[in-house]
Formats: sequence, structure tokens, C-alpha cells
Amino acid sequence: MSTRTLIRGGLVVTAAEEIHADVLIEHGRIAALAASGTTAASAWTAEHVIDATGKYVIPGGVDAHTHMEFPFGGTFSADTFETGTRAAAWGGTTTIVDFAVQGVGHSLRGGLDAYHAKADGKCTIDYAFHMIVSDVNERTLKEMDLLVEEGVTSFKLFMAYPGVFYSDDGQILRAMQRASGNGGLIMMHAENGIAIDVLVEQALARGETDPRYHGEVRKALLEAEATHRAIQLARVADAPLYVVHVSAAEAVAELAAARDKGLHVFGETCPQYLFLSTDNLAEPAFEGAKYVCSTPLRPREHQAALWRGLRTNDLQVVSTDHCPFCFTGQKELGRGDFSKIPNGLPGVENRMDLLHQAVVDGHLSRRRWIEIACATPARMFGLYPKKGTIAPGSDADVVIYDPHAEQVISAETHHMNVDYSAYEGKRVTGRVETVLSRGETVIDHRTFTGRPGHGLYTPRSTCQYLD
Amino acid sequence: MSTRTLIRGGLVVTAAEEIHADVLIEHGRIAALAASGTTAASAWTAEHVIDATGKYVIPGGVDAHTHMEFPFGGTFSADTFETGTRAAAWGGTTTIVDFAVQGVGHSLRGGLDAYHAKADGKCTIDYAFHMIVSDVNERTLKEMDLLVEEGVTSFKLFMAYPGVFYSDDGQILRAMQRASGNGGLIMMHAENGIAIDVLVEQALARGETDPRYHGEVRKALLEAEATHRAIQLARVADAPLYVVHVSAAEAVAELAAARDKGLHVFGETCPQYLFLSTDNLAEPAFEGAKYVCSTPLRPREHQAALWRGLRTNDLQVVSTDHCPFCFTGQKELGRGDFSKIPNGLPGVENRMDLLHQAVVDGHLSRRRWIEIACATPARMFGLYPKKGTIAPGSDADVVIYDPHAEQVISAETHHMNVDYSAYEGKRVTGRVETVLSRGETVIDHRTFTGRPGHGLYTPRSTCQYLD
Amino acid sequence: MSTRTLIRGGLVVTAAEEIHADVLIEHGRIAALAASGTTAASAWTAEHVIDATGKYVIPGGVDAHTHMEFPFGGTFSADTFETGTRAAAWGGTTTIVDFAVQGVGHSLRGGLDAYHAKADGKCTIDYAFHMIVSDVNERTLKEMDLLVEEGVTSFKLFMAYPGVFYSDDGQILRAMQRASGNGGLIMMHAENGIAIDVLVEQALARGETDPRYHGEVRKALLEAEATHRAIQLARVADAPLYVVHVSAAEAVAELAAARDKGLHVFGETCPQYLFLSTDNLAEPAFEGAKYVCSTPLRPREHQAALWRGLRTNDLQVVSTDHCPFCFTGQKELGRGDFSKIPNGLPGVENRMDLLHQAVVDGHLSRRRWIEIACATPARMFGLYPKKGTIAPGSDADVVIYDPHAEQVISAETHHMNVDYSAYEGKRVTGRVETVLSRGETVIDHRTFTGRPGHGLYTPRSTCQYLD
Amino acid sequence: MSTRTLIRGGLVVTAAEEIHADVLIEHGRIAALAASGTTAASAWTAEHVIDATGKYVIPGGVDAHTHMEFPFGGTFSADTFETGTRAAAWGGTTTIVDFAVQGVGHSLRGGLDAYHAKADGKCTIDYAFHMIVSDVNERTLKEMDLLVEEGVTSFKLFMAYPGVFYSDDGQILRAMQRASGNGGLIMMHAENGIAIDVLVEQALARGETDPRYHGEVRKALLEAEATHRAIQLARVADAPLYVVHVSAAEAVAELAAARDKGLHVFGETCPQYLFLSTDNLAEPAFEGAKYVCSTPLRPREHQAALWRGLRTNDLQVVSTDHCPFCFTGQKELGRGDFSKIPNGLPGVENRMDLLHQAVVDGHLSRRRWIEIACATPARMFGLYPKKGTIAPGSDADVVIYDPHAEQVISAETHHMNVDYSAYEGKRVTGRVETVLSRGETVIDHRTFTGRPGHGLYTPRSTCQYLD
Repeated sequence: MSTRTLIRGGLVVTAAEEIHADVLIEHGRIAALAASGTTAASAWTAEHVIDATGKYVIPGGVDAHTHMEFPFGGTFSADTFETGTRAAAWGGTTTIVDFAVQGVGHSLRGGLDAYHAKADGKCTIDYAFHMIVSDVNERTLKEMDLLVEEGVTSFKLFMAYPGVFYSDDGQILRAMQRASGNGGLIMMHAENGIAIDVLVEQALARGETDPRYHGEVRKALLEAEATHRAIQLARVADAPLYVVHVSAAEAVAELAAARDKGLHVFGETCPQYLFLSTDNLAEPAFEGAKYVCSTPLRPREHQAALWRGLRTNDLQVVSTDHCPFCFTGQKELGRGDFSKIPNGLPGVENRMDLLHQAVVDGHLSRRRWIEIACATPARMFGLYPKKGTIAPGSDADVVIYDPHAEQVISAETHHMNVDYSAYEGKRVTGRVETVLSRGETVIDHRTFTGRPGHGLYTPRSTCQYLD
Repeated sequence: MSTRTLIRGGLVVTAAEEIHADVLIEHGRIAALAASGTTAASAWTAEHVIDATGKYVIPGGVDAHTHMEFPFGGTFSADTFETGTRAAAWGGTTTIVDFAVQGVGHSLRGGLDAYHAKADGKCTIDYAFHMIVSDVNERTLKEMDLLVEEGVTSFKLFMAYPGVFYSDDGQILRAMQRASGNGGLIMMHAENGIAIDVLVEQALARGETDPRYHGEVRKALLEAEATHRAIQLARVADAPLYVVHVSAAEAVAELAAARDKGLHVFGETCPQYLFLSTDNLAEPAFEGAKYVCSTPLRPREHQAALWRGLRTNDLQVVSTDHCPFCFTGQKELGRGDFSKIPNGLPGVENRMDLLHQAVVDGHLSRRRWIEIACATPARMFGLYPKKGTIAPGSDADVVIYDPHAEQVISAETHHMNVDYSAYEGKRVTGRVETVLSRGETVIDHRTFTGRPGHGLYTPRSTCQYLD
Repeated sequence: MSTRTLIRGGLVVTAAEEIHADVLIEHGRIAALAASGTTAASAWTAEHVIDATGKYVIPGGVDAHTHMEFPFGGTFSADTFETGTRAAAWGGTTTIVDFAVQGVGHSLRGGLDAYHAKADGKCTIDYAFHMIVSDVNERTLKEMDLLVEEGVTSFKLFMAYPGVFYSDDGQILRAMQRASGNGGLIMMHAENGIAIDVLVEQALARGETDPRYHGEVRKALLEAEATHRAIQLARVADAPLYVVHVSAAEAVAELAAARDKGLHVFGETCPQYLFLSTDNLAEPAFEGAKYVCSTPLRPREHQAALWRGLRTNDLQVVSTDHCPFCFTGQKELGRGDFSKIPNGLPGVENRMDLLHQAVVDGHLSRRRWIEIACATPARMFGLYPKKGTIAPGSDADVVIYDPHAEQVISAETHHMNVDYSAYEGKRVTGRVETVLSRGETVIDHRTFTGRPGHGLYTPRSTCQYLD
Repeated sequence: MSTRTLIRGGLVVTAAEEIHADVLIEHGRIAALAASGTTAASAWTAEHVIDATGKYVIPGGVDAHTHMEFPFGGTFSADTFETGTRAAAWGGTTTIVDFAVQGVGHSLRGGLDAYHAKADGKCTIDYAFHMIVSDVNERTLKEMDLLVEEGVTSFKLFMAYPGVFYSDDGQILRAMQRASGNGGLIMMHAENGIAIDVLVEQALARGETDPRYHGEVRKALLEAEATHRAIQLARVADAPLYVVHVSAAEAVAELAAARDKGLHVFGETCPQYLFLSTDNLAEPAFEGAKYVCSTPLRPREHQAALWRGLRTNDLQVVSTDHCPFCFTGQKELGRGDFSKIPNGLPGVENRMDLLHQAVVDGHLSRRRWIEIACATPARMFGLYPKKGTIAPGSDADVVIYDPHAEQVISAETHHMNVDYSAYEGKRVTGRVETVLSRGETVIDHRTFTGRPGHGLYTPRSTCQYLD
């Protein structure tokens, strides 16, 4: 990191600009940008010069929703912080925000410490934590204040999964009130889990056990209902709200209505909702289990609403909700009972490429690609401008991206620790070539040069979207 | 311009970033930015060094709606391109987009040439033109294509002012269809002028002749109606739409509804709608005439919807609609008949300061201030990134802004060629200190150092908001 | 009429009730109803007893939108008041409200007198008139007051057909203001005719001359736009509004939004929009011309919105817009140019049966059938309770309806003076058996026993829907 | 009842008609109506003739929401079925539908039997029961089917009152699914009780103990949220929904939105929400306790939305939610803790008069008065046309109403068993003069002539609003 690195001749794409500029890195941070060909640019020298001619120079991706080694349904998600962050780097993501978990009856502190222990010294790229709050009570409310002070500034609550992560509306309201006071951001899994569990029980009783019934019982209306309810509770608490993994057109409509009122309500979607559908859940021979996640995949018609929401800024962030379970041995736990299939999909490695494909397909502009994948997640979760942009003073988390390379996504070539790909065989245009994390090369012309332990825990300030 | 200029130590604020950076200017353009204090920054030298410590370094303002020497109601707006652009510079605006006017029965070309003649060699800062189309017909539709090619890429139509600038819905539809094909952007004055003229006639017949009746007859519902109609015609034509000087809450609601559908519909408001109201129109002794413009000022309650629209991006741009008429001799034409008061307010000098005051008041973030006043108008009208930002390669249109200075707005101290101020006596925090236009100092520590003719005509590409 | 008639044993269905009752008629009016089998009922005797066992006893239909001998496109609609009212009677309709026409440059009075002359002594059933106002000016505004006083209490304006019936927004506003004062009801043909005429010209220029292009150029969005505009103008004028022949789902949405605000806005649709679609307009060999009317038939998907609107009372009335032109010699005027096809469909004879079929199909309840076809049109246009119900004191306009009879609609068997049926071959359940008009039998067990001249002109009070 | 009664010369007002007619009653039912002055009418004779000249002849009121002897907060509502039904009769109401209560852990049957025991032989007028379901489980779901069969066709659930009547969303969904199958109608107390209880606890902890805080913690947003949620659950279950005691403008908006979609969603409001407000709750010296009910009284501005909803039919019914607690000894239980004030207001005697006052005030038409107070509640709960109208065959529940009499509402003159009036001192125009219940005179020119035990339990068919 003591050396200077100079990236010459690329097209620097950020959320705000597309400029032909050389980028100078000193001490792991962006020191300067100069228009290519100017006297100022020409004067620069560096020990390490990267030729980015014909390439994009973009901020490293910020994936604000991952679950490494996450306990769910009696098993753990298959990526460790080591394998998961390495795969992220391969995919052009240089920061993840993972979820520490409070168990019911335990403290937030204990849950957070356990996650620090899991991640410490393992990560190839920088990381931070949200806190899952499973047990809102007087003690945990006080702990929230402390966590915000030390850089864990967002708290996830669940309206789904009664008996596990579920909070009732009173607990939600209390947590929101607390967040309203301490600057924290409440993240919500918005599905009416109480009603869904009735439908699950009824479906199983009717013998509807295949993976596709997972999609049928977790109804779009019940996602929209919970989204509406969370918004109203946030209004009562005068707190901002971030709704995770929005998948239903009706839920997008609730967010749009809230934002038209000027409320501080934000929405995240994920690549799986943009590119996959209930058609996948209905794949025969239990293959549908590969696509079981919650909120579930929706019928193909919902995708247009998600793309529109990303354009109109009713959805602000695309994260992966990366939570991989191997088909063999893990997804198979739910053979004969869809409700026992561990919920989650791999994706941390694919996000930047899939969203670039959306640029190629005309869904997004290049700048919006960087905005939803890098800049806004960094702002939303208090990491900007350290992360999410290429600007003087920012961390030198930089990706050299080849917009013309073609690749085929496959479990055979991916680096995530899971035995299938949700996008197996999908052909996309664009590929990560080189990745810097705080100025250090982690991927060098598609060779991994990183190391566990380079990635550092990164405390966060509060949500910057509320300026 | 052959010299290098270096701006040291300021807080560079753009639509996207707030960074402590030094800005290096070569040949009238931004050559480079470097984080203050880095080796890279320290290495820079320049003939001209500006110390911006404790100041903001912001892009020069882009005022996308001005009317210099504009014919209206039998008189002309009081600022020439010389006086108007000088006043703009004083106010931190370094680019204006003014409106060339086609007369009924004449060609677009002729109207454009006449405006080139008015502006050529007179301007202190750069300028461009929109084209007012008063007579949509086969010939003018063809001329639209030519104008787009040469950099006049936006066309203003009027649903108001029957018999003068008015186009009927068929003409509007044809112009929109043409714009849909050639990349032009239709700008709409959205008021149902046919209905309003009935109400004007009836009010005058009842003896309601004071300025305040101007506000009563030009009903908010009739602005909202026309806004809705323009949006539907744009849908039929599959064309984008930019609605100028939005003032009514109901019109904002129409824009929000259109954007929720994903339509390419944009809205502009003006400082007068954000800071003034029908209370001003009702000022006694004909003083209300100073505030007569169309769309009219609205009751104070509408302001909240405008601020909210600016926050939620249902309104994207704040322009001035600068169209000054002296109280003495011009506004007085309408004594005894409000319909004869020339429509328009001075404001080109006040916009950046008033919007900074909105930052101080908590209505906007600093970045949003720059976005609505500099970056988005530049994008919207095809001037980005040449104008509207501080990025390597951009024109060095830069303002050193003192965020702590206090000033009182007054006709006694302003530089616009008009005998009153719409904001007389208003105390604001923040003031322009120094202004560069393409690297040349136009205002130097509040001394005017510019010259007529420095400002150049700037052809525009098409609207970049449709990427 | 001096005799007593007694209808025994039927199920009396009105908008409000379904009761097993005997109906006693004296002097052409309903004298009394008694529950069947009561002492009171049993005591009744009459010269003329009709056994309605197993039948419905319903109010005669009120068709509030017909055009007999109507001048359009250089020809006249094919039914005279004699043939048209006879056909109406066959179909169970006992009152029509037809449209007198003011020619541009002429008086309302003259137009009305001409229609009185056409109808006087010719009608089998009772009739009344709306007034089409083609030329809103100071004189006609004053005439509106007089017409309201003498029982012509509704005025139709056109936003379509520039150069013929078209009124601009200023004329519309003035007429609405007048109606607001005198109690009249403005009926609106809501299509943006100015924009449509542009699309017509462009379509013809592209060689798109077949009937189906009639449906393509008259876009649903342009119906919705005009509907919205009419509503806003009515708000400005503080006047009620009745929108005729609503066909587009988007227009229904505008009505629903207005009614949610509590505005006095009403909507009518017609059987052709409920049962036919653009599929008919696309019938080959110029057959599509049979279905050319304005507003046009819409794609089949719109029907659900119309049925829903009838259920939710966002649409209140089903009229026919009966305006028949023979295929041979009349519709054929538009071969090679769809814009020359006379606009209109036959239907006055089919309405009651088609809507009963809607009851059979589950779209409507029996009471709602009578409400939309009899009671509400009578209320809307000031004929209630004289017409539209079976209540003591009402005119004895009564239909004995066989709900089980089956029939096939066909030009071969219908009684309208036109050479085709828009519903040729359609099988429906339910048929008119006997019809009384003011107590006199006009159809007797499917034999025509009426006579021209029995039907009387019926002055109307103002809209009763505004109580 | 074996005698004939004849009501001569009044204006018969029903939901559908206003007719000058004589009404003949035989055997306790309406036998016939004849237009006054006709031969048919003149021929009638009767043992008992009532002269209704200058009076209205209206159906007896149907109050679909009363709570006699209702256990709440450790006490019982103060009216017995004897005192309550007598007061109802005095107020022109001839049918009540009261709520039998299932206790948690008990059967529906047991709860119903207990209410039959309370009411049997005590009532002056006819009565029926809804069933409050406090404990949805497999057994109670089955019992619902049985109750529907025997005429208890509506089931009330609570989203408020956790630990008492509260059902969670899963229980609600199951009950709705059951109702969808058996034709029952779910009635919902729609307030988010879980969230409200948090706010109650926080308010008390802050020392906010006065009655007015009852209104502040039970927020309009939390009524609207629950209303929205109930609607979505009903959509999932494909069941109709009736929301009781709607008080918030935001809740009306949810109902309107649902109805625009064509959903079978219905809403009831109560006189207290139309005529009283939080101003009453804020009355000093604990007087506010008189107005404590849930949903709570709202700020005065909400009333306009309720009146509009009644006009636009987004609200269909006005019931009283009559649940009286004496100020002395009962309301006083909540001194120092508003959450201990028994919830409920007296009103069964005042409803018809207050709504007639709304006619006088121009809020409602006469026909709409009868519709919301008599006809629709009868239809909604399966009592029509036996109750709610004056038509041949209906029960002879008839009120002779003097529209010109003036009265002042007061606890000193009312007949409800409660020591205060919620409308003390309110002057209204209109008064009940004579009341018949199934042909028998219960109130005779303002003398009580009824007797306990005349009123009969009346089984109900299923909701008729779904035809």
C-alpha cells in the first residue's frame, strides 16, 4: 500500500459521471483523478500502472445483504466468510454488509461478537455488519444505542418466521422508535408470516409438498400487506425504513405510494427477482428447491415493476441476499415438505455481472448500474464516500471491468462454495478483469491474488440517505 | 486561459460528492482533482492559486429558463443579454438557456437567428437556446429536425395564451411525435389557457381588476388539468415531457403519478413558487403586480408539495423563469386590468442563494442543491458533463461560495436591470465570492471582472435524462 | 285507460325490491301493490287481468340515449321516431330520451322545435329530449335557462368532432357554469377530438383505411384524457357531469377517482362496450363497419372494468346510444376511408334482454339490472318516479318479462329499421312478453298492439341524483 | 294482530321511493300500498286507522350494532335487553342485532345460548345476534357453519384488545376462509391493538392519564393500517368483509380503494363519529370519559370524509355501537388511567333523529337516510325485505315520523338506562311520533304501549349485499 498505483486510459463510471480519466492511488486511497491526456495526467508516474484502455474503471461493488455461515432450518449457509468474500471479489464486489444474529433470549452484543469471531482474519475484502434483532425487549433496545455508536447502524426485523426471527407489531414499533432516536435504520423482512404459516400448513395438509408451493403460499398480497404495515408503523414511530428483498409488484406500489408522500422509505431488490421467476420454482425433479428463498420468486410479470422501480428510484438498492445452501444434503432436507427447504440462493459473485447485463439489455444506464450496486448501498448504510465511488479521498476499491467480454455463468466456474448456480448456463456480456481493495490487487487479470485477512471490519456511520 | 489555475482547500460539492479536494484547471477546463493534502495535490503548482479554505467549491449554476429581451404584452423584458448574464454571474450562474421565439407565421430559423443576433458578443457567461414554437405546421416540424442537429434540442409549447403562443392539442401531439423521432424534448407551459381566458373575462366584467385576481382566475386545477393532458398526449406520442414552472400541488401530484408509471416526465419549479405566495399578489397599492407571472403564485400551502417534490425527485430542476419587467412603466401597464400586467419576475441573480438558504433551512441537502441547480438542468438539456459538475474534463465553470456570509436581497444592491426585487429585504445566509467561467475569473472576491463576449453560444446534445 | 288492469302473481322486481305482489292499475297509473294472496289482494277485481305467474313484472325500460333520424356524416340514422319507438317497445323499453340538435349558428329553440316536429304523433311510447349544444354563445346560454324551465334539462356537449359538434374548453366551461346555475346536467362526449383528428389523418396517409383503424386512432388514453378534463372543468364550474358512452377502462378509473373525491360525476356505458370488442371491428370484408361508433369498441380486456364499474356504481346507467345506419348504402359510405363510416349502432330493442343476460351470466343482480336500465336513468334525467319504477302513483309502464324464454338475436326477427344486427346470432335467455305504456297494452304476448301517437312528449325535472 | 291497520295520508319514504301512499297492514305485515286518493286506496277500511298527514311513514330502524349487558373492563354495559330495546323503540328503531360473546376457551354455542337467555322474553322489539369469536380454533370454525345454518350469519373479530377479544392474523385468515365457504360475513374491529398497547403503556408511563390520551394513542394511522390488513386478508381468503365503527378519514380511504377494485368490502360508521370529536374527549374534569369508545373519536376534520363516504357509498351503514356505561361508578373506573375507562357510548335511542338532522343539515337525502339506517343494515345482515323497508310482504315495522317537531336531546328525557347523554343539549328537528312493531303499536303518539316479550328473536339469512 505504500506504492502508488496509476490506472490509465479507462472510462471512469460512477453514479454521477462517466469520464475519461486517469486515477492515481496513494496509500490505498484514491488520491486524484485527471482527465486523460492533460498535462496534469501526463505528469503522473507510479510504481504500478494498470492500462484500462477500452475498459470501465468502476467502484468496487457494495453488497449490503449477505449471509455467510448463517444458521437456518437446522443447517448453515455454505459459504464461510473466507469463501464468500473471495467469491465476492471474483465478482467485482469489494465490500459486504453481513448480518450478525441475535438469538432469542440472548444479547445483541453476544450475537455480534460471535459474528466478529467468524469473520475476523478470514475476509479477502472489507466487511461490516447489520444486526438481526430477534428479541426486542428493554435490554436489547438499550443495546441498539451502543451498537449504533460503534458502527452497527442498521437492524433487521422479521415480520415472517414466527417462532424464530419474528417480531410482533409492538416489538417492531418499539425498535423503530428507538431507531428514530439513535439514528439507526430498521431493515424489514416484510411478509405476513403469521398468515403464511396458516397457508403452509393447509398446503401441506392437501399434499402440496413440492418446491413450487413455496411460491404459492407466500402470496404477493401478503408481502404487500406487510410492506404497508411496516410503513405505517414507521410513520407512527417517525422512523426511516428499508425494506429488504422486495419481489412483488404490489409491494413496489406500496413503496411508491409512501415515497410520493415524502416518507423516508427505501426498497431493495435482488437479482433473483429480476432474472428468475416461479417458472424456476416449478422445475421438475425437485430442481425447484434451488430457487427457494423468501420472499419467493414471483411470476414473470412482476419483473417489469421491479425494473421500473429501479428506474424511478422507488427501489434504490440491488443486493444479493446471498445465502447459499448446497442442493445435495441441504436443499434436500425439504424433499416431501417444501417448508423444510433451507431458504436462500447463492449470488454474491454474480450481481455486478447480471446488473451489467441489465445495462446491455437496456434496463439501466451505466451510471444507474453503479448507483444501485455501489454508491447507494454505501450511502444507505453509512459507508460513503469511503466506499461506493471513485473520488479523491475514497478507498481505492476499484474494478477494471471489461464491458465486451462474454461469459457463461456456471457452478463449474464460479467460486462460491455451493454445488449449483441459480443462473446456470446464462450467457452475459461483461466481466471483471482486475480488482483492487484499498489499493491492493485482489484479482489481477482474472487471477486471484488476494488473501484472507486483508479484508477489514469497517464500522459504519448512520444512513446518509436522510440528509 | 493558457494559464493554470489551482483552487486549494475548499469543500468541493457536486451532485454526487462532498470532498475536500484541490481543483486544477488547465486551458479553461477542469484537469484534475486531488484529495487535499495528498502528495499528488501538494505537487501541483499554478500561476493562479485561489484559496478556498472554509468555502464551497461548486459548479457554476445552470439556469435553464430565462427570458432576456423577451417580447410580452407589448413590451420587452428589461434585461438584455448583457445585463442579464452579468447579473447571472453575480449570482453564481455560469450558463443560461434562454428562449428563442418563433412568431406565428414565421420560421423557427428566423426566430433563432434573431436571438443569436441579440446575444452574440453580449454575454458574460455561456448561453444556449431553447426554441419557442408558436406555430406548429409541416414546415416547422421539419425545421425541428434541423435545430436538434445544430444543438437546439428542446422546444417549448404553450397550452396557455391563446392567440399568442398557444398550440392546440393537435399541434402539441404533432410536435411531440416529431420530438419522439428526433430526440428533442418538449417543454410545456401547462395551463388551460382557453378556460382561463373565460375566467379572466368574467373577473374583469365583475370589476375584479387588481393583481390578486390574476392568481384567482389562473386556477390550480387548470394547471393540473393541463399537466395531465400534456402527459397523456406525450404517452400517445411516446415522447418525453418537461413541464416548466410547476406551481400547484395538484400539478405535482400529476407528475408523481406519471413517474410512478415509469413515464419520462419531468418537472421544473422556480424560486418564486418556493418562497412567495398569493399573499404577495395581494399586496396593496398595486404592489402585487410585481409578483404577476404565469403559472401564478399559489397559496402558501402549496409550497410543501413543491419542497417534497424536489426531495422525491418528482421535480428535478429549479430554474428562474427570469423575465423582469420594471414596476414603473411596465408592470403599470396593467393598472385597472390585471390581464395587461406583463407576466414575469426577475430572479436570475437570486437563484443559487435562495436555494442555499433552502439548505440552511433544512429543505435540501447540499448535494441536492447542486443537483437541482446545476447538474440536472445540464443533463436535462444536453450540456453535461461540460456544464453542471466539477469533474476532470468539464468546463471550468466554478463558483467559490461562502456558506457563512450573510446578505440582504435588495434592488439597491442587485445587478439585474429592473427597479424592484421580488425578495426585497429577505435575509439569506451564503454568498457568491468568486466565479470562473471556462477558467476565466468573472467575479473576483465580489468584484466584476468579466466582459461581454466572453460568454459563448453552446450547442447542446439531446436530453441525457433518458439514458 | 279508464279501465282497471290487474297484474296477478308475478315477481315484481324494481331497483329496490323483489316482491311477490299483485299490481293494480287505474287511469294509466300504478294505483296499488298488494302482497299476493293477502285479503287485500284477493279483494281486487279488474276488467283486464294479466296472469304473470312465473314471470317478472318490471318497470318499462328507460333508454336515455337514442338518436332517431339523426343527421351524421351526410346521412340520417335509419330509424324514425315511429320505427324506433316501436322497436323499443318490442324490447321492453317504454321511454326514450332522444337528442334534439342545435346546428352551428342556429338557436336551441329552432333545433328543439325541429325535433318536436319529427316526433310528434309518431311515437308508440313516451319520449323526451336532451339538447345537443353545438354553438355555445351568449344567446344559447340564455336559451339553456328557458329549456330547463320547460323540461329539457340536460345538454350534450362534444369534445370530439371538431368543426361539427365540437365545443372548446372555454365553451364547455361557460355551459357548465350556466348549468350550475339553472340545474341543468351537462352530458359529455369525452374524447380528445383535436388529437384524434391528427391520428386519423396520419392513419389514412399511411393507407390504414379499414374499419379497424377507427378503433386504433380513437385511443383509450384520449377518452380518459377528455374524461379527466371534463371532470376538472366541472369542478371549476361547480357543476355536475354525466359522461356518455364510457368504453375505456382508463376512463372508468377517472370516474372512480372523481367519485372517491365526492364529486357529482356520473357515467353511462352501452351494451356494445359490454358485449362487443375490437375483434368485431376487425371483421373482414368491411363487416367491421357495422361496429363503428364513437367512443369505439375497445379490446376485450376493457369489459371487466365496465362490469366492475356497474357493480361499484362508478357507472350508473346503461343506455344504447342507438343510432342505426344500414350496412348497405350507409355504412358503405366509408369503404376505403374509415373516417367516412357513419358512427353508430342499432340497439334500442336489445338492451333489456342483453342486460338480463348479464344477470343470467352473474354480472349483475336482478335489482341492479332494473336500476341501471330503468330507475337510475329516470332519476338522472328527472323522470322519476313517473318512470323507472313500479310504485303507487307511477305511470303504468310495465313489462311482463319471461326470464326462462330463450331467443336468438337477429336482423331477421328484430323490429329496428336497419339491415343488420350488431348481435346477430347471439343466444340469450329471457324475453319480453307483454308491455304496457301508461296502462295501455303495446305488446301483448309478443303481438304489437301499440299505435303511433300514443307515446307522449314528457317534460323532465332536473337531475334527481343530486338530492 | 288480527286487526287491520291503515296508515293514511303520509309520505312513505323508503330507500328507493318517496310516495304519497296509504299503507294497509294485515296480520302484522304490510299487505298493500295504494296511492293516496285513488279508488283503490279509498276502498280500504280498517279497525285501526292512523292519520299520517304531514308526517313521514318510514320503516322502523335497524340498528346492526348494539351491546346490551355487555361485559367489558370488569363491568357490564348498563342497558339490559329490556331497557335497551324499549329505548330503541322510543328512538324509532324496531330491530337490533346484538353481539353474543364467545369467551376464550369456550364454545360459540355456549356464548350464544347465554345471550339468548339474557334476551328471551325481555325485548320490546325484534332482535337478532352476531357472534363475537374470541377464540378461533378447529372447533369454533366448525361451529361457525352450524350458526350460519341457524341464522347467526355474521362473526365479529377483533384486531384490537390483545388478551381479551384479539385474534391474530392467522386466526383471522382461518375464520375468513370459513366464512368464504359458509356464507358468513366477517365483521372486523380494525385497530392494530398490539401497537396501540405499546403506545398506551408509554403514555401512562409519561403520566398522560386523562381521557383525551385515549384518542391520542389509538392513532388514525393504526386504524387505517388494520383496515388495510383486514382487506388484504379477506382478499387472500376470497371472503367479504364488513368493517365496524369506521372513524378515521384514512380508513375510509382504504375502503374506497378496495371498493374501486371491486372487492366486497363494506364499512359502518356511527353517529358519534359524525357528530362528536376529540374536542369532547378533551372536556375537563374527567367529563371526556363519557366519550371514550374504540375506535376513538377523531379530530373534527375527519367528519367530512365520513359524510362523503356515506354519500359515495364507501360507507354503507350507520349503527350506534350502543354500549352505555354510567358516568358514575362505571366510567369513573378509569380516573387516573384512561385505559381503565370502559369503552362505549349510549346511542340506540338517538340514531334515527341524529341522521334525520343530517338530512335537515343537507348531508343526506331522505332516501339515503332510510337506506343507511334501515334498508342496508337489513340487507347486509340477511333481514331484508322482512325488515328495513315498507313493501307488500314486509313486517309491519313502521314509524310515523314528524319531520317538523323540535326536540332537545338530554339524559333527563331519554329512556336509555344511563346517567348521561353523549349529545346533551343538542337541538334537533324531527321526532318519532308512533311506532309499530309487526303491526302492534309500541309507541303511540309518544306514549309507550309496548311490552317486554313482544320482540322476537329473528334468525337471519346470509348477507344480501353480495347478490
